Amino acid sequence: MKGVIRGIAPETELIDITHLIEPQDVMGAAFVIKNAVPYYPAGTIHLAVVDPGVGTERHAVALRANEQWFVGPDNGIFSLVLDGQLPETIIQLDRPAYWQTMVPSATFHGRDIFAPAAAHLANRTPLEELGSPVETLQPLYWALPISDQQGIQGWVVHVDHFGNCITNISKALIESHYAKRTVKCYVGATVLTAIQTTYAEAPHGEPVMLFESSGLLEIAINSGNASQMLSIRKGSPVNLVFTDDG
Amino acid sequence: MKGVIRGIAPETELIDITHLIEPQDVMGAAFVIKNAVPYYPAGTIHLAVVDPGVGTERHAVALRANEQWFVGPDNGIFSLVLDGQLPETIIQLDRPAYWQTMVPSATFHGRDIFAPAAAHLANRTPLEELGSPVETLQPLYWALPISDQQGIQGWVVHVDHFGNCITNISKALIESHYAKRTVKCYVGATVLTAIQTTYAEAPHGEPVMLFESSGLLEIAINSGNASQMLSIRKGSPVNLVFTDDG
Amino acid sequence: MKGVIRGIAPETELIDITHLIEPQDVMGAAFVIKNAVPYYPAGTIHLAVVDPGVGTERHAVALRANEQWFVGPDNGIFSLVLDGQLPETIIQLDRPAYWQTMVPSATFHGRDIFAPAAAHLANRTPLEELGSPVETLQPLYWALPISDQQGIQGWVVHVDHFGNCITNISKALIESHYAKRTVKCYVGATVLTAIQTTYAEAPHGEPVMLFESSGLLEIAINSGNASQMLSIRKGSPVNLVFTDDG
Repeated sequence: MKGVIRGIAPETELIDITHLIEPQDVMGAAFVIKNAVPYYPAGTIHLAVVDPGVGTERHAVALRANEQWFVGPDNGIFSLVLDGQLPETIIQLDRPAYWQTMVPSATFHGRDIFAPAAAHLANRTPLEELGSPVETLQPLYWALPISDQQGIQGWVVHVDHFGNCITNISKALIESHYAKRTVKCYVGATVLTAIQTTYAEAPHGEPVMLFESSGLLEIAINSGNASQMLSIRKGSPVNLVFTDDG
Repeated sequence: MKGVIRGIAPETELIDITHLIEPQDVMGAAFVIKNAVPYYPAGTIHLAVVDPGVGTERHAVALRANEQWFVGPDNGIFSLVLDGQLPETIIQLDRPAYWQTMVPSATFHGRDIFAPAAAHLANRTPLEELGSPVETLQPLYWALPISDQQGIQGWVVHVDHFGNCITNISKALIESHYAKRTVKCYVGATVLTAIQTTYAEAPHGEPVMLFESSGLLEIAINSGNASQMLSIRKGSPVNLVFTDDG
Repeated sequence: MKGVIRGIAPETELIDITHLIEPQDVMGAAFVIKNAVPYYPAGTIHLAVVDPGVGTERHAVALRANEQWFVGPDNGIFSLVLDGQLPETIIQLDRPAYWQTMVPSATFHGRDIFAPAAAHLANRTPLEELGSPVETLQPLYWALPISDQQGIQGWVVHVDHFGNCITNISKALIESHYAKRTVKCYVGATVLTAIQTTYAEAPHGEPVMLFESSGLLEIAINSGNASQMLSIRKGSPVNLVFTDDG
């Protein structure tokens, strides 16, 4: 893919965000994109290729949102960063003139369709030139937490390189339950009773619950791997129970 | 290595193709190079450092082919991309004036010999300046499939990051057997009876046989890891049997 | 982090040295930095983020040494490359005006403090502008080998991607014991009796003892993984015993 981009747009700078997404893990990719994109300057072109549906009817798309471009499969990979907003323009990459070959490989659209589209955008080809407009995008079936007055049930949606377990439970949702109340969090092999600010507030090797850098509840171990040590995986349930003090 | 290149040729752009080749896996590296190189523009300098023979009599070489340069150990790593063609010029990197130090490390020629050679090429030093010409390259002992009218026996030569298993059996070789006949493929824990075009033509979680993006027969699982699920490893045999229809 | 740097200093070139340091492994990072930094040209800004103490009282620092800059946590990560020399200038990154946000994340100073500092340095902001001067740095508790006339006891301090085991025993220390004497090295599941120059001097698959590219004693296997095959891990003891010949 880098070679294809270089061939079309020799002056473009390429920045690797990650090569550590597990195969097929669209939600993990969506999570990384959500966390990385806001820190990139206007004009950045984001190219994502976690694409379990390559060869099916899923569209290849390019879109523009918040003065940045996005190119990849239409499988929900951009849904978290778009945060429910439909982008200004969405284009289906259906013009072979902008592909790497007239007959793209059935298994590697990253090289044959997405990379050339990103390179043409880098060359200032207008987005609308690359294909036909489409109205909407596929949603990502991101599990929403369930909550009532007594508590919140959510799930672990991402386990990072350090074994930290990020849930789908936001700081805002917790704060709507939390005033003057105590919380217990049941997750994996542990129960946590306080939300802290840093890993280091727990003793070395002990579990800790805090908000990660984008505001989601995270289960971690101070200087350890929470996923391994607490038997928590992507998809594990996380139950928060609130009780009135005293 | 990147620091050495930067010190000699500050304007060069560095592109990482992969850091995921297993130690000593010259064939895996040769396969990645074969697939990546044709997509890079003329003038690209390719530097490869999978080098189990460092410290032996194997040569360090630089060569020119198809308007690109290649620098690395003479151990067959470039043989697949060269596809049996002897390059226009092959140079043995035997001039200490172009090394990082007069006495290179016995264990890290990448840093001390290959990286400086690539950087000098980037600075437009003529290839012929870097050392003495040599006539030929070491072959890579790439196992060729065995075939007769009834069938083909080949091997898995590469397992990629997704667990897809690429064989040494080409589309051309299969097509020479295939007209009006049916095929059965015996590999690992499965038997496959059709060559498909995309992963998604198999049911979710089921094995599929198709041609990968460079035309070699590949065994995969739709949304799964074929190597793990079918007990196939690099070196596993792949047997194709052809029978006349009806 | 790359996005933050790009936003502040769009012309900067970013070079990844490694993303393969194990979580929390400050010594492994210190070792990689020690080996890589001398090969980068003057003016390079080195950014390191192995930071088990994020959220504690440990300082965030930037410093200048040998015409290069270093930015990261004050946890000893730069101690091996500095080799006991106190740098010309050390600055504590305590000025929010140079942070990514006024209230940095408690868990990701790499993005919110270190990356912006590195980017401002790339923009030629004077080091002294970024914060208050400090007098000293935290040491890295790098275990020193113990030695007497009969022998040396050291430890494995790093296991690299190939399974090669690097010890804290230097060539200079060994040479002070070695004249006219023979050496036996007891490590993991093996005993070695000669220090060689290249991996290839041992038979294929056999263990070998040599000095790695920065002069430390290394235990390896010719074309194999010494850590796995000899049961050696980071922290394993390495005992050298010297005896007079004859």
